Amino acid sequence: MKGAIFPIGLLLLASAISPLSAWSVEPDSRRLRGQETLEKITGAEGRRVVDSLREISPELGDWIVDFSYGDVFSRPGISLCTRELATISALTALGDARPQLKVHIEGALNVGCSPNEVVEVIIQQAVYAGFPRALNGISAAKEVFEKRGVRTASLKPEAAGATIEP
Amino acid sequence: MKGAIFPIGLLLLASAISPLSAWSVEPDSRRLRGQETLEKITGAEGRRVVDSLREISPELGDWIVDFSYGDVFSRPGISLCTRELATISALTALGDARPQLKVHIEGALNVGCSPNEVVEVIIQQAVYAGFPRALNGISAAKEVFEKRGVRTASLKPEAAGATIEP
Amino acid sequence: MKGAIFPIGLLLLASAISPLSAWSVEPDSRRLRGQETLEKITGAEGRRVVDSLREISPELGDWIVDFSYGDVFSRPGISLCTRELATISALTALGDARPQLKVHIEGALNVGCSPNEVVEVIIQQAVYAGFPRALNGISAAKEVFEKRGVRTASLKPEAAGATIEP
Amino acid sequence: MKGAIFPIGLLLLASAISPLSAWSVEPDSRRLRGQETLEKITGAEGRRVVDSLREISPELGDWIVDFSYGDVFSRPGISLCTRELATISALTALGDARPQLKVHIEGALNVGCSPNEVVEVIIQQAVYAGFPRALNGISAAKEVFEKRGVRTASLKPEAAGATIEP
Amino acid sequence: MKGAIFPIGLLLLASAISPLSAWSVEPDSRRLRGQETLEKITGAEGRRVVDSLREISPELGDWIVDFSYGDVFSRPGISLCTRELATISALTALGDARPQLKVHIEGALNVGCSPNEVVEVIIQQAVYAGFPRALNGISAAKEVFEKRGVRTASLKPEAAGATIEP
Amino acid sequence: MKGAIFPIGLLLLASAISPLSAWSVEPDSRRLRGQETLEKITGAEGRRVVDSLREISPELGDWIVDFSYGDVFSRPGISLCTRELATISALTALGDARPQLKVHIEGALNVGCSPNEVVEVIIQQAVYAGFPRALNGISAAKEVFEKRGVRTASLKPEAAGATIEP
Repeated sequence: MKGAIFPIGLLLLASAISPLSAWSVEPDSRRLRGQETLEKITGAEGRRVVDSLREISPELGDWIVDFSYGDVFSRPGISLCTRELATISALTALGDARPQLKVHIEGALNVGCSPNEVVEVIIQQAVYAGFPRALNGISAAKEVFEKRGVRTASLKPEAAGATIEP
Repeated sequence: MKGAIFPIGLLLLASAISPLSAWSVEPDSRRLRGQETLEKITGAEGRRVVDSLREISPELGDWIVDFSYGDVFSRPGISLCTRELATISALTALGDARPQLKVHIEGALNVGCSPNEVVEVIIQQAVYAGFPRALNGISAAKEVFEKRGVRTASLKPEAAGATIEP
Repeated sequence: MKGAIFPIGLLLLASAISPLSAWSVEPDSRRLRGQETLEKITGAEGRRVVDSLREISPELGDWIVDFSYGDVFSRPGISLCTRELATISALTALGDARPQLKVHIEGALNVGCSPNEVVEVIIQQAVYAGFPRALNGISAAKEVFEKRGVRTASLKPEAAGATIEP
Repeated sequence: MKGAIFPIGLLLLASAISPLSAWSVEPDSRRLRGQETLEKITGAEGRRVVDSLREISPELGDWIVDFSYGDVFSRPGISLCTRELATISALTALGDARPQLKVHIEGALNVGCSPNEVVEVIIQQAVYAGFPRALNGISAAKEVFEKRGVRTASLKPEAAGATIEP
Repeated sequence: MKGAIFPIGLLLLASAISPLSAWSVEPDSRRLRGQETLEKITGAEGRRVVDSLREISPELGDWIVDFSYGDVFSRPGISLCTRELATISALTALGDARPQLKVHIEGALNVGCSPNEVVEVIIQQAVYAGFPRALNGISAAKEVFEKRGVRTASLKPEAAGATIEP
Repeated sequence: MKGAIFPIGLLLLASAISPLSAWSVEPDSRRLRGQETLEKITGAEGRRVVDSLREISPELGDWIVDFSYGDVFSRPGISLCTRELATISALTALGDARPQLKVHIEGALNVGCSPNEVVEVIIQQAVYAGFPRALNGISAAKEVFEKRGVRTASLKPEAAGATIEP
């Protein structure tokens, strides 16, 4: 359906100039859907990562756009915010993917998750992946929040009391 | 606030009978809150796990109830369904926690997530933790769905077409 | 280029019968290439895995065929045997993917690797991922070799002496 | 220094019969030291594992004896019990090495650690590697303790109260 | 029992000023015990980490003090040095927790382990988690030893010869 | 057999000066074989790593030379290039061993693998260990290629078209 709003003449022109990377115009619905979803989640950052792969492995960039964002993240069934929270949860648990974790903490905020929700799924990993990974996840979140000017001091007044027993 | 509805007389009585395990009556709001949340999520299964620890390490059982469920899972901020989906995501990514993954797939269904949402966060791990862990996660889900009689054949008519390009 | 030998009339017919799974005829070069590569590597086993996903998550099966085998494993640049050895190496290192490891030990033999090469990359993981994962990898190889009647006793006469100092 | 108590005549004889595996008599101090340490820690079990490798990868068996037990575990500096507790800690944290974890829980008991110490380092992993791996570690310990008739019910009367606040 | 030496009047006062973080005075024996153990192991460093969480996730800081150090590390049964060696072993094996590993290498020295013992459990991970993680663990130890002026050149005269065969 | 070309007089002399580290002359075939293989693969870099261990843990350096390179990497059965590709595959999958990954990307080039082959096994990990680890592996390769002046822009003309559907 997205293809429908893409002018067919441009498509033909595009295929004539032999597109070679994820960001050339290309008449492929996965590509277009992937680019759109990638931009919705990561803003310009995802595109920057894909572009950085152009010289060493453009196909890895293509797979990110076509498969990760075109096939997987564009699926209906759960909201983009829930997808991003699930991604943050997995990346915190894996523990060695800080650059990607930061991209998806930004992504979660971009698609409407609250900073509070991001913090919740990260600290929950103290239970499943252990405190070091939860701590390193929170440190990544702190960097993102400071960069974006999210005021963390007043983040969760209601939650602050929740762990203090009377 | 939960403590407020707990009769103070019972509390005193309870402390007099010297509770020794997670499932004795004990005047501790974390314990009560944890037991309640554990039961809400896992039904009788969580209690069975905690009981199985009684002889070898009752304190590990206490920590599950008091810390994991009393402190962490009882927090406000995200819904229990989102918590369970984040848990499923992390356990699929960790890859070596099949018993716990199955408990939380049941837990997700118990707190109102749809089978479809469970499947979505598991297959998304093909992107973040690789296909083998996604496959093993789906195999765990399949066992749970079959046990509970969830009809997977008609799981997601709308999604079925989503990955097929025209 | 493979698309070129696929009769265009059949393609139109195929698209008319609305294929819904990885194993229906479908006019997609990734799908065809993926099925071919999957079969070359895993014989009927890969197809069995994909089929087992039909009811719970047919799209995960599609991704295995289209992305893993159509996009990645069908690439030129290294031989299929080297790809399989690299896969065995990674799966041994990850440590929690025994079913997939066994499929790819079979796959390595199917595409012409020798049992000796399979054993070499597994035991090398004693250095990189530690002895337990190397041991569990060898135990998986042993099961596959016994099933296929690979005579392991005489596997590597030359190598047997290699670690014994005079 | 251990070599000093090994009769030199036997050594010469041994080298004449051209030993081919870890368990033949062989004039190598690493081999002898490794066999001795392996037996001290694992009893007959380690030898059984090494023997099971004879046909598929005798060199992996050699490395276990010569390197793991001859070079590493035979070192002075920390007691064998502390080594075994450190091993149990690492194997619980890695999470996917249950057979090896069970061997070393037995090993810890064999070299004089108490069941209580074994339980302590396993449940401590709830903090560092998360609850699922701690739980799976305890389940491995439970199997070992039951097999050996370690009475877990009365394991740690003093510790039982330690996590219960007055 | 530690609560007994805490003046009850101060406790009441403390609860009146509504403590909000792990480092306010708070009438909870887990908190007090945790703070004491955390300080014994990490000196001022652990408190600095907990304080750094105050704005983004004070509850994660609370859990570190109350659960990790109050419930787990304060337990009897094994010495603090053995606990720290087990922690170093697990963190080296997990591989992606360098900041925490450095804190606990310092912690091990703080509670009376020798530098030699620290080195032993790290290099032992060459066997269980592979050489890269052992190497990265040793590199962390090197940084800590240099910062504290531990003279590593003369670390272990007796051990130096242990791996050299005559 | 390598020992045969080593002058026996020098051996006796060498043993008289009591070698203490991996890089002293020492009459041990594993040591010599290991040094030779280590240098063939890593050039001066491996020696630098081993030397950096001299003060904190010379035995870890010995084990790298004697066991990892003398016992494992010196084995016949697969080519050094295949060994290095298997190593790169495992290190990319483990995810937290960037320094070692970079050493072995250089190693692969040193023993005759093409940059293209290195890229292939890294991006293949998108399937087995997930996209974040594949991306971080490619970023390590990029640093190595830039340092060595490998022209990545023209890396794989033939492969570039392989993932673009017509």
